[in-house]
Amino acid sequence: MGQKRENQALLETIQNLLAEKKLTEALRLIVGQHPADVAEILSALNEESQALLFRSFDEELAGFVLSESDPGSQAVLLAFLGSAKAASVLREMAADDLVDLLGELPVGSAERLLKLLPPEDAGRVRQLLGYGEDTAGGIMTTELVSIRAGLTVGEAIAELREKAPGAETIYYVYVVDDEDRLVGVVSLRELIIAREDQLISEIMRSNVVSVYIGEDQEEVARIVSKYNFLAVPVVDYKNRLRGIITFDDIMDVIEEEATEDFYRLAGTWETEESAGRPRVLRSLKTRLPWLLVTLVGGIISGRVIRSYSDTLNSVLALAYFMPLIAGMGGNVGTQSSTIVVRGIATGDITPVQAVRYVLSEAQVGLLVGLICGALVGLVAYLWQGLAVLGLIVGVAMMANMLTAATIGALVPLVFRRLGIDPAVASAPFISTGIDITGLSIYFGLTALLLSKLVI
Amino acid sequence: MGQKRENQALLETIQNLLAEKKLTEALRLIVGQHPADVAEILSALNEESQALLFRSFDEELAGFVLSESDPGSQAVLLAFLGSAKAASVLREMAADDLVDLLGELPVGSAERLLKLLPPEDAGRVRQLLGYGEDTAGGIMTTELVSIRAGLTVGEAIAELREKAPGAETIYYVYVVDDEDRLVGVVSLRELIIAREDQLISEIMRSNVVSVYIGEDQEEVARIVSKYNFLAVPVVDYKNRLRGIITFDDIMDVIEEEATEDFYRLAGTWETEESAGRPRVLRSLKTRLPWLLVTLVGGIISGRVIRSYSDTLNSVLALAYFMPLIAGMGGNVGTQSSTIVVRGIATGDITPVQAVRYVLSEAQVGLLVGLICGALVGLVAYLWQGLAVLGLIVGVAMMANMLTAATIGALVPLVFRRLGIDPAVASAPFISTGIDITGLSIYFGLTALLLSKLVI
Repeated sequence: MGQKRENQALLETIQNLLAEKKLTEALRLIVGQHPADVAEILSALNEESQALLFRSFDEELAGFVLSESDPGSQAVLLAFLGSAKAASVLREMAADDLVDLLGELPVGSAERLLKLLPPEDAGRVRQLLGYGEDTAGGIMTTELVSIRAGLTVGEAIAELREKAPGAETIYYVYVVDDEDRLVGVVSLRELIIAREDQLISEIMRSNVVSVYIGEDQEEVARIVSKYNFLAVPVVDYKNRLRGIITFDDIMDVIEEEATEDFYRLAGTWETEESAGRPRVLRSLKTRLPWLLVTLVGGIISGRVIRSYSDTLNSVLALAYFMPLIAGMGGNVGTQSSTIVVRGIATGDITPVQAVRYVLSEAQVGLLVGLICGALVGLVAYLWQGLAVLGLIVGVAMMANMLTAATIGALVPLVFRRLGIDPAVASAPFISTGIDITGLSIYFGLTALLLSKLVI
Repeated sequence: MGQKRENQALLETIQNLLAEKKLTEALRLIVGQHPADVAEILSALNEESQALLFRSFDEELAGFVLSESDPGSQAVLLAFLGSAKAASVLREMAADDLVDLLGELPVGSAERLLKLLPPEDAGRVRQLLGYGEDTAGGIMTTELVSIRAGLTVGEAIAELREKAPGAETIYYVYVVDDEDRLVGVVSLRELIIAREDQLISEIMRSNVVSVYIGEDQEEVARIVSKYNFLAVPVVDYKNRLRGIITFDDIMDVIEEEATEDFYRLAGTWETEESAGRPRVLRSLKTRLPWLLVTLVGGIISGRVIRSYSDTLNSVLALAYFMPLIAGMGGNVGTQSSTIVVRGIATGDITPVQAVRYVLSEAQVGLLVGLICGALVGLVAYLWQGLAVLGLIVGVAMMANMLTAATIGALVPLVFRRLGIDPAVASAPFISTGIDITGLSIYFGLTALLLSKLVI
């Protein structure tokens, strides 16, 4: 409650204390906070203060704070520590958090840090790093609790007690056979309710939903959020239990994937990086390619207009309505594509419904086109006193909005069918295409009706 | 793993069985599935089959399936049941799921269903319905486990065992005083590890993060995902424990809020509804207002062009580059506004960083403007053989992209400052504004340099 304001006040107090060289008091204030808050406060301090405080944290707190910091800050914070301290801090971290941290570092630095870990841990992290960043293997942790089906509930709880400190969650206990194959799951809730002498095999659910280690993280998120799982087990091709993915990682995935789609729709490539700190050159690199694509589109539009320069020359008023025709088409098309791209991402639009969606978007395009076309046609007529101009502008507007809505809905669906990320069918891309068709319709129609124009 | 394909295969088998009137076999197949899968399969069947199957479910399964169905389907499914059966099904549902279900129904139907519940339950649901749909109160459940600090760990576990069936989660146990005020929290994990004779007051954490019952759900989601909580307690103004919000509801909120922002950016108002099933008229209602706003903007653009009609008449080639100038400005502006709107939503852009972001977006706008301006200027020159035209087009492009990026970043930040949802500063809105400034810059510049034009 009011967490933000509290952190703001705390930040100021800590800044003041540090300015007065009262490190001990500043430390006492900050270490009582949740690691997520500590990370937030640290990130708002200058580097000198960050180093001062972070070096004074014990290994456990430092590990937690690192896990909660964003990729950019992690590298900075780690650099404050000597390698002995860094080694003990890294040992405190969960395997999946380590993978996130090391995955963001240059290979050289990551290898240097890995050498600081006990060989067994390092091997495990190396293996996790080998999975694609956006796959189940890349976000899972290996710190899980698994038991055999032959145990009693009492024995299982005793084993849980022992394994609890090293496990990411103990609320789901996975049951495996002699070859580590996943055969069941039982929740701590079920264990607590059961009699101590019952066998795990009696109370476990054997119909376990699991994900394949190479599964895309977006699909994993869809499964976890569909079933409201606290965690989902990850298996390899032999159904051997390899790790678990917990709900907190899934929340991050949901946010990350939405951010990615937002950026793609606006025509910028990379995600996270550019969100953290604004870096002009990196941003330029991710945005310029799309802009150049649309630039070429714009030049093609120019050529379309030029090919009708005689028409335009005889009825200059046509130029007044050019931005309107192109712009409204672009807007309707963007609305349609956004709705379809988002619907695909949330799973609301299944392949079966694809045709129905395109038809319904076309209907919407036709209806708004009729309304806007009538209005604009009227304006054009009143403005220039030319009935035929009104007719041309109105009909072109209607035809363009119908086409735009259809294209906007169709392109992402076709992309999905072809196995391309529908979000790539982004707004700038679609709207440039719509500009070209829109202007062609407009001038084509004019050329057709030109003989009827009274100038 | 391959959940989708499995459901598809199951769906076909069930359809075939129903076609052959083998209801019992179809039922046997479907009731073994997870309720989320049952809901998915049901929604793909025709109404007759839905009714046949749903009526045959026992109360518990029917309740789970209802909770997992989308709002539109819930009303349809409920209508298949007689009121006696409906009453027992509703009694099986969690309070927060009931609130979601009833909140979507017309008041009359909701009241009729509420009357079917035991008075105590009905009262509780009515109270929850009273909170805003998008507030902590509107998404919380009252089915939580709270205990007193004076209990021992053993007593607490015994109480948990007893309360478990009715609770949404037993993994966090909240500690309250005599007046129900929240004083601590202890996780089941901590209970399991602790000695049986320890007092709750010894092992509980007393620094509990809670949310106020009227807090916006977006802020609640931010807190839960920041701290990786399984659940967060909801308190009233006297710090009395009133409910909990669990991670599964938070996942829904994260998706819902992202969807809302997507739609706002594209200039359509309502969210969820239009996502579920495409209904042309409803979609029209949510999209037309924005389109009309941008229509007016387009007419203003037309007037700007018209006021320069003499200029245009003497250099018709200016018209060829109009869509390009306006379009590229729109694209850059949309990129900037999307990045800022999303950054605000994920909490990556804090108010402190606002100025830095606008400046960095302006820099990006300037840089892409220089690159695109040089390219387009060159094209214009080569195309028409007029150096001055190349200069005008190039400089106008540059100035427009700089302005567009700045406006795109500035508007959402100003909106946030004014307390308006930044996502409302949506793409069509911004791009229309940018069209007008862009064309003004273009023609203003031309008028300035016109004397130097050799025609």
